[in-house]
Amino acid sequence: MALGPLSMNMATLNPQAPFQDVIDACSRGGIRAVGALRDQVARVGLSQAGSMLRSRGIEVTSLVRAGPFTANDPVAAQAAIDDARRAIEEAAALDAACLVIFAGGLPAGSKDIGAAREMVRDAVGSILPEARSAGVPLAIEPLHPIYAAERACMNTLEQVLDICDELGAGVGAIVDTYHTWWDPKLSDQIARAGRKGQILGYHISDWLVPTGDMLLDRGMIGDGVIDLKTIGAWIEASGYCGSPEIEIFSASNWWTMPADEVIRICVERFAVNC
Amino acid sequence: MALGPLSMNMATLNPQAPFQDVIDACSRGGIRAVGALRDQVARVGLSQAGSMLRSRGIEVTSLVRAGPFTANDPVAAQAAIDDARRAIEEAAALDAACLVIFAGGLPAGSKDIGAAREMVRDAVGSILPEARSAGVPLAIEPLHPIYAAERACMNTLEQVLDICDELGAGVGAIVDTYHTWWDPKLSDQIARAGRKGQILGYHISDWLVPTGDMLLDRGMIGDGVIDLKTIGAWIEASGYCGSPEIEIFSASNWWTMPADEVIRICVERFAVNC
Repeated sequence: MALGPLSMNMATLNPQAPFQDVIDACSRGGIRAVGALRDQVARVGLSQAGSMLRSRGIEVTSLVRAGPFTANDPVAAQAAIDDARRAIEEAAALDAACLVIFAGGLPAGSKDIGAAREMVRDAVGSILPEARSAGVPLAIEPLHPIYAAERACMNTLEQVLDICDELGAGVGAIVDTYHTWWDPKLSDQIARAGRKGQILGYHISDWLVPTGDMLLDRGMIGDGVIDLKTIGAWIEASGYCGSPEIEIFSASNWWTMPADEVIRICVERFAVNC
Repeated sequence: MALGPLSMNMATLNPQAPFQDVIDACSRGGIRAVGALRDQVARVGLSQAGSMLRSRGIEVTSLVRAGPFTANDPVAAQAAIDDARRAIEEAAALDAACLVIFAGGLPAGSKDIGAAREMVRDAVGSILPEARSAGVPLAIEPLHPIYAAERACMNTLEQVLDICDELGAGVGAIVDTYHTWWDPKLSDQIARAGRKGQILGYHISDWLVPTGDMLLDRGMIGDGVIDLKTIGAWIEASGYCGSPEIEIFSASNWWTMPADEVIRICVERFAVNC
């Protein structure tokens, strides 16, 4: 089964660039889909952003992001839920294919990662009725275990799919090569997710050797050690037919380059390596 | 069930210190068991090291290490096997409770982590007859997924236990808190391993927030975010009755301090936090 059109997550380009410049560059580069960042959308305004995208025929494959959901403080926890409800409305307004759920790490002062995981599951469950009503699937993204303490207590695809099974319709997972390539169960869990239609996004970047910075030194497709062709074949075989989305956080390298050049290289590399 | 006497892995102390100085410091600190490093043993000589340990009544809970086993080059691969056979003999001579298997990362130029994993399984299988004859259990240590590319393609306890099941008697796993604390399946897999007597070591250090260096900035017990009491309870409930072993790689902090001081703090922290 064929995948959707190649999507460029806006985090691949300089995140400080104006929204219109980014989508204009995408248009020039032949890109018909983007992963959109909420703060970039907010800077131009939601309705204006939607108009710009529609006028260029660019669809939104993901809206990034709701969360984190692991605040100890009840006021902060409620604020995250309220913000997530706004994110659902924004995703609906942009006709985004999914809203990305960013879990959060350990609560301040806590060593209880099991409790953090329950907080995330419960928070997603609490916004699920609104998400279903709005027709916005919630996509929980497992992040690499290196981020477990500080950023995300959702760390494997299997773990996220167990939560999806528990919560029911309207929740799925993002499979990101950077976060999951090391996982001995990746192939099995992609197939499992595919059987239930639980793959809501397929994000692509590469793992550099060595990696200079654990957060902002992801590699351009083909520059690292991830077997992207094999993982891509598992994704296709799973029945996923959404877009592959290129998401490369690269502060000291790709973010410093002109958007047109980055897009051109992404398209070239995707064709050869994925 | 009670665990064995607290063990000090020699890598917790300055690895450049002479062997005798280290075990003398352990003796002064009331430590009755050590994890021994092969190169430290080699510098003093195997029989001399054994005599020193026996004369002080110190047992060896692990000998570190055999591997890596993911060389592409057949000559290098055979050299690793030959070296591992010598390591088995050394472990037997020291009456070590196990020999630690250090897997290795991706072979040079390879993106095939599945093939790397098969190389490790096959290498361990090939030295298993000698290990069984010598009465030296082989302990495969899953390392944190951050090391998958460069150091170790064995990354979860479940993955290692699947290999242990495949290889049969004489192979087990090290459970290291630093490498496994994030794993959503850790409790289940410790229980699984316990039922089959497959836990060959329980290594303890803490995860600092932030972590300065991914290899050599492990935390002293109690200084990080790992719930060591809970993991320790899982280990005890599994039926493991070997020693807990403190293993803290800390180049810029604990390695710079006098061994007596480090040992005193380890003992204190273990009593309070584990």
